[in-house]
Amino acid sequence: MNGMSNGFDDFYAIIPAGGTGTRLWPLSRESKPKFLFDLLGQGRTLIQTTFDRLAAICGIDHVCVSTGERHVAAVREQLPELSAEHIFAEPSPRDSTAAIALATAVLMRRHGDDIIVGSFAADHVIRGKLAFIEAVRQAVQTARVGYVTTIGIAASRPSTAFGYIHEGGSLAAQIPDAPDATLVERFVEKPNAVTAQAYLSTGEYRWNAGMFVMRASVLMDHLHKEKPRLARAIDAIADAIVDDDRAYEAAVETARAQGENPRESVHREDFRAHRDAAMAKHWPSIEKIAFDYAVAEPLSVEGGVAMIPGDFGWDDIGDFNSVAALLPSVDERNNKVLGSLDDVSTLDSAGDVIVAGGGRTIALLGVNDMVVVDTADALLVAPRARSQEVKAMVKHLAESGADELL
Amino acid sequence: MNGMSNGFDDFYAIIPAGGTGTRLWPLSRESKPKFLFDLLGQGRTLIQTTFDRLAAICGIDHVCVSTGERHVAAVREQLPELSAEHIFAEPSPRDSTAAIALATAVLMRRHGDDIIVGSFAADHVIRGKLAFIEAVRQAVQTARVGYVTTIGIAASRPSTAFGYIHEGGSLAAQIPDAPDATLVERFVEKPNAVTAQAYLSTGEYRWNAGMFVMRASVLMDHLHKEKPRLARAIDAIADAIVDDDRAYEAAVETARAQGENPRESVHREDFRAHRDAAMAKHWPSIEKIAFDYAVAEPLSVEGGVAMIPGDFGWDDIGDFNSVAALLPSVDERNNKVLGSLDDVSTLDSAGDVIVAGGGRTIALLGVNDMVVVDTADALLVAPRARSQEVKAMVKHLAESGADELL
Repeated sequence: MNGMSNGFDDFYAIIPAGGTGTRLWPLSRESKPKFLFDLLGQGRTLIQTTFDRLAAICGIDHVCVSTGERHVAAVREQLPELSAEHIFAEPSPRDSTAAIALATAVLMRRHGDDIIVGSFAADHVIRGKLAFIEAVRQAVQTARVGYVTTIGIAASRPSTAFGYIHEGGSLAAQIPDAPDATLVERFVEKPNAVTAQAYLSTGEYRWNAGMFVMRASVLMDHLHKEKPRLARAIDAIADAIVDDDRAYEAAVETARAQGENPRESVHREDFRAHRDAAMAKHWPSIEKIAFDYAVAEPLSVEGGVAMIPGDFGWDDIGDFNSVAALLPSVDERNNKVLGSLDDVSTLDSAGDVIVAGGGRTIALLGVNDMVVVDTADALLVAPRARSQEVKAMVKHLAESGADELL
Repeated sequence: MNGMSNGFDDFYAIIPAGGTGTRLWPLSRESKPKFLFDLLGQGRTLIQTTFDRLAAICGIDHVCVSTGERHVAAVREQLPELSAEHIFAEPSPRDSTAAIALATAVLMRRHGDDIIVGSFAADHVIRGKLAFIEAVRQAVQTARVGYVTTIGIAASRPSTAFGYIHEGGSLAAQIPDAPDATLVERFVEKPNAVTAQAYLSTGEYRWNAGMFVMRASVLMDHLHKEKPRLARAIDAIADAIVDDDRAYEAAVETARAQGENPRESVHREDFRAHRDAAMAKHWPSIEKIAFDYAVAEPLSVEGGVAMIPGDFGWDDIGDFNSVAALLPSVDERNNKVLGSLDDVSTLDSAGDVIVAGGGRTIALLGVNDMVVVDTADALLVAPRARSQEVKAMVKHLAESGADELL
């Protein structure tokens, strides 16, 4: 570290906030995805805790959010500290490569080509805050050397819900400031149970939580080489956004010159003409491709991806079973409740996950290991063991035309 | 039969409409008991079908209802054909002996001491209407001879939810118009499963559905002998009610004499001063005792009770399992729905009983043989096999102070 720097001065965090969280239906919906919920009952939503965690590392001004246009209002309401220029609104979902690339391209134009960017999902839960900071610190150091650096989560069970990272040789000699860095041998898709167990027994596999830290220029150079159409579209939109930046700054100057208070008379969100035009022109044709496929996997084959082990408690709360694992029991029978305990009455029932979100009393008699999710307009009942299949239930509802419930 | 008589001219039907139906919570409540519900989804509530069934036998003017004061408005709304003088409102529950005796005592005063009365619960389901009429016909003939006559239901399974009637010798020789009449050997309480099975294998036991037909005078004489305090209190209230009758009739005469239309200016329900005073004085101290204990069992020991076999389909819909047995399946997986089918979506779920009464979508994934009852303010989930224990759930809620849900 040099001077007053904490080692993160050139680091910017991007929070792609997308994905409905279909397996958490009927709590999470297309119109209100899971990152907007306080799934741990701790008073802060998932995107709020994600923002808090990253702002603690690099400061509020170094955190931005990419999300769908329909969620911008909710994000701004939940994150009043986030200024307008740090929200990138997507007219339609174009998957994570476009989301991360657009934020990266704009940040480069604003802060220079040498910055480091990191992408962290809006809906993950991390408990070991200091261990997380240390992992990100080593990831930033490793990224400086040129690696796209992921944080590999300690696999605590043979999960079939996550992709895995196969660890390669140590990079400690090459990067003294990141003693835990290794190469990534390869990324592997969600395995079946037998394969997952085999991975675990080698001790060489970690979960891929989709966290990536890299030099902005490394990412954009790779995209220009491998996905040139996507990269050019992103550049055009980023250029338009900084054109809006300049128009805004000019308006601020003018207001000041006229003796006005620009905070009152000039609003950042009103300067979006260039961006809107560029979005309309380029966004719809952008390839929908996940960051893993477009960047991490191909670069790992070339030895361009590194990994820092993340041994903090982590979960992506994919389904109600995950929610249950993170909630404290409300009684000695291992029942878990999200919402008001006053709304729940259990008799001879154990191991249930109850979401009391409908304002009514939920009475369970002799119900074991079930998920009961009550909301104002929809109720779900399912065994905990079938939590992953809630996605199929939502598909079933979609097929029967219940669009208003999705 | 003589002249235009159908054999029921001197017969009056009493419908005691009491009992919350606790095992049908949260559908049925203290404030809206099960007899007010259309549990079969056929467009008529239980008390409506009971009324229809009895009115078809003895005419609308020969049917009366005894119910709690808080349910009078709902009963009148559901049975607009029922005139005000045919509703006996109870200030507080005093069990079936008082309910039947009061209606009987008033009917005797209005229609003479020789009438036959029959009591039929408001919340039973009977499918074989002609077989029911024939059973009641024979019961009336048997009652004329002086027997308190019950209708014994063919026991189709070794139920532990009903009391049983042990059949005695035939009375056919004594009562030619009631060829199926037998004496009742004795009444037995709800048995355990082994005993119930033993009863069934003898072929001599039938279910006690609490239907009793008897000469009004036989009932009142018995009560005056065995329960004199209760009988005197009932007589005093019945006297007061006929005093109100006379005050009403006098007012009608006066209105007519003054050229008014008494249907517009005189209302039966306004004439209740005598009744109210007598109720206030006598009702609270009346012994709470079931008709079976006060009348049927002691008289059966003296050989005073007869039985007509009832081989019509019958159920008392005590719990959600009973509801399920009477509802058609909505799919090939034996799911049963009470309420709007549009509100129910099942996936890989079988044998469920779903009550859609909350106006929201109920989604069941991998849920088998469960009861799910959704209402505006309370939701119940329980295995079908534990339907009888819903009563315990309600007790649990009562103990936790959720009085507004009972």
